Amino acid sequence: MRKKEKEAVEKLSKITTIALKRGFFWPTAEIYGGKAGLLSYGHLGKAMKNKFENLWKEYFIKSNENYYEIGSSVILPEKVFIASGHLEHFNDPLVECKTCHFRFRADQFLESRLKIKVEELTPEEMSDLIRKNKLKCPKCGSWHLGQVKWFNMMFPIQLGAVGIKDMAYLTPETAQASYLAFKREFEATRKKLPLGIAIIGKAFRNELSPRQLITRMKEFHQAELQIFFDPAEINRLDKEEWKQISKYKLIMLPQKEKKVKEITCEDTNKKLKLPKFYVKNLALAQKFYIEQLKIPKSKFRLRELSEKERAFYNKIHWDVELELETLGEFREVGGVHYRTDHDLGGHEKYSKENLKIFYNNKKFIPHVLEISLGIDRDIWALMDIFFKEEKERTVFSFPITVSPIDIAIFPLVSREAMPEKAKEVYNILKKDLLCFYDETGAIGRRYRRQDEIGTPYCITIDSQTLKDDTVTIRERDSMKQKRVKIGTLLVELKNIM
Amino acid sequence: MRKKEKEAVEKLSKITTIALKRGFFWPTAEIYGGKAGLLSYGHLGKAMKNKFENLWKEYFIKSNENYYEIGSSVILPEKVFIASGHLEHFNDPLVECKTCHFRFRADQFLESRLKIKVEELTPEEMSDLIRKNKLKCPKCGSWHLGQVKWFNMMFPIQLGAVGIKDMAYLTPETAQASYLAFKREFEATRKKLPLGIAIIGKAFRNELSPRQLITRMKEFHQAELQIFFDPAEINRLDKEEWKQISKYKLIMLPQKEKKVKEITCEDTNKKLKLPKFYVKNLALAQKFYIEQLKIPKSKFRLRELSEKERAFYNKIHWDVELELETLGEFREVGGVHYRTDHDLGGHEKYSKENLKIFYNNKKFIPHVLEISLGIDRDIWALMDIFFKEEKERTVFSFPITVSPIDIAIFPLVSREAMPEKAKEVYNILKKDLLCFYDETGAIGRRYRRQDEIGTPYCITIDSQTLKDDTVTIRERDSMKQKRVKIGTLLVELKNIM
Repeated sequence: MRKKEKEAVEKLSKITTIALKRGFFWPTAEIYGGKAGLLSYGHLGKAMKNKFENLWKEYFIKSNENYYEIGSSVILPEKVFIASGHLEHFNDPLVECKTCHFRFRADQFLESRLKIKVEELTPEEMSDLIRKNKLKCPKCGSWHLGQVKWFNMMFPIQLGAVGIKDMAYLTPETAQASYLAFKREFEATRKKLPLGIAIIGKAFRNELSPRQLITRMKEFHQAELQIFFDPAEINRLDKEEWKQISKYKLIMLPQKEKKVKEITCEDTNKKLKLPKFYVKNLALAQKFYIEQLKIPKSKFRLRELSEKERAFYNKIHWDVELELETLGEFREVGGVHYRTDHDLGGHEKYSKENLKIFYNNKKFIPHVLEISLGIDRDIWALMDIFFKEEKERTVFSFPITVSPIDIAIFPLVSREAMPEKAKEVYNILKKDLLCFYDETGAIGRRYRRQDEIGTPYCITIDSQTLKDDTVTIRERDSMKQKRVKIGTLLVELKNIM
Repeated sequence: MRKKEKEAVEKLSKITTIALKRGFFWPTAEIYGGKAGLLSYGHLGKAMKNKFENLWKEYFIKSNENYYEIGSSVILPEKVFIASGHLEHFNDPLVECKTCHFRFRADQFLESRLKIKVEELTPEEMSDLIRKNKLKCPKCGSWHLGQVKWFNMMFPIQLGAVGIKDMAYLTPETAQASYLAFKREFEATRKKLPLGIAIIGKAFRNELSPRQLITRMKEFHQAELQIFFDPAEINRLDKEEWKQISKYKLIMLPQKEKKVKEITCEDTNKKLKLPKFYVKNLALAQKFYIEQLKIPKSKFRLRELSEKERAFYNKIHWDVELELETLGEFREVGGVHYRTDHDLGGHEKYSKENLKIFYNNKKFIPHVLEISLGIDRDIWALMDIFFKEEKERTVFSFPITVSPIDIAIFPLVSREAMPEKAKEVYNILKKDLLCFYDETGAIGRRYRRQDEIGTPYCITIDSQTLKDDTVTIRERDSMKQKRVKIGTLLVELKNIM
């Protein structure tokens, strides 16, 4: 165990070093010492994030003709969060030392001191535990700790001049804006269900202990798809559609089980009693990770949350979890949530706006199934899972769907007309591919630099190019080279990619 | 004049009605009555914004191999804004009624009451004007108005628990994050100048009177490119590069002139004394509007700001302005700013981090030229400029580079295997183009619906299609139709697009 922990720390440190040096990410305002929980993306990290988001859109939004992307302000008025319940329920337990006034998370404090899980305890129960175990302030050592109290995790925003009562908050999840837009979108898109409303954007949570790098941040990015549907159809699915997935195996960890099991969609529906529409979307999420992101099956699982773990409005809740060596365990990177009519119902109640629709010959509030992904967590997971150390190099063996660069182009040496020829090739390819041109340094070192950031292919222009218009394509993982005509280069690349 | 104003209001109302109904944009949290200064994009507005941003990236970032996009948190620590000067200088003049405690913008109040420009006055001078003219509170009519005071326009954010002194702000411009990243990026991208660092993202300003729809918002989107360069090279440009633009005519309104003039880049450099590197980027910005966005020249101008109008750190400042009928005048949508070493110098001073680089055989702080665009304003400008009313229809004659949808696909009637055939065509095209499928309603009405949102082409599958595999392409502006084979459809479309 000790050894595993040490390896995790080492791997984390190696990846972070590359991230900082090469331009994946770094602490925001690093020159001022940075801020816990705030991160920024360098040019490689941003390119990777762009690819991830485009892949997500192509995959999830285009999976149905009636799914759309919208945009929203991240500042939302207070009433929204009264209706959603965030103002009342979105809290962390906080305790203050009455001697030195240091404030800290009571749950994390108890978990690390007593080695127990406290996720399901009330503030009173946590206060009792602190008293009974005579725990001291982690900063000054005083026994005089106050009562554990709820601390709301949203960032308040004062709209307008101070003194005017016009409160708002930075949204803690992109989802709310989709609910606010539902009525307009349903009408603008000609009143069909299921209707999907997706938002890719920022969300904000005032995490008091934003440890663990990119996995728990104060400002982060989500890709969330809210699917509005008729609850009477939750277990109905087009026969052909169901046939296509019924034998597909989901990698599941139900609450009752201790080990992951592969269960067909059919059995998930029949034996685990999950409705067909929900199963279909679980499969959609799993395929995104396994087929699009190429995550090894052994590092993927869908985990069912217990009733106490999940938010009170989620009737069904399975998390997408990936095994991350740097964090020493499986970690949530997304989830599929059946939120019922909780959100639209709440907004109807507080806004006094009629959010019922007339569809399938009846009047009702649609139910919501949400597919939610944490983009930053996913980026970190990809860096963890695809990081490889070999004898003479370190490699990110990213699939080309998420690598920051598609193709690097090098003249073997920076003379004899090779740079000119290489620029020609660069200009041919840059319209269709994310290209990078480099002529500095020994060719071997240039390959290593690309391996280190996960570029799948390098193209080299050498003296033979000048004679017969051929170049070499070097493949990152096998390091094998192949010689092809410049004229057929783009076609060749598209074939192997 | 009266008539022009009335027409502006009418046009604004017509465009807004379409925007709301069809899904371009609406007030955030509309079901709660909305909030001044906060807007959200519906599926059509978001599609348009995505296209605009991609076009911006392709055009500006790909204009140089050493330009890159990065990402940043929008929450930045307080020190950043001490260094940048925003904490001290980024203020609006505010006045409070001592009777009813209503607070409002003193400058806008004076401008509307006295019909004068007060942009350059101090708070004391504005207080004097209010007193001398015996102006009354616009709300309660009291004469008892307080002194005009500066009000900082940034939104403060309390990081961590209340009581802990850890202040931050929502960034009022994306630019600052590029300066914070400069050192890391310069090293990660192998130490070359000019280096371009671009950010597309949100910015936040606590505007007290966020009137005028999408042009003055509390939360908005910017596309900003910061170009770091050696100040010794500001008037040097590669001969070939200069030759390519020296005869190109800029549409300029210098401070000394009353009318717009077309001036070649060469004369702009020689007679207006603008340095070549600055002129090159002015031309780059103008070409984006004229060639990429297809803005008519008569509605475009580059306006020089007076010394008092421009921020104190901008040594040269020309705004990009477009004439908008809905606002009755030319309006700023972007700008080209020579910010010198003000920003990096400030950050070096306050962070104590050495931000000098060694380049061109000397040690120095690079200077910055900024190209800054307001995305929401540009979207509104496009809707204003391309809106047309004809006898039987309203049209957005957007260029395809920014239209929310590329192609609509219709079966003439929803029977006789036409829908199946239309879906086939839809599936062929949807990989390369933004397609929309619709089979409901009369064909004429379906064309009108697409005209109203600016879709450039509609494809119709009719009974002849079932015989000979041909379809009609209908062009939006001319309403002319052309019949082509399905097999060559994609090629045909790419040719006319």
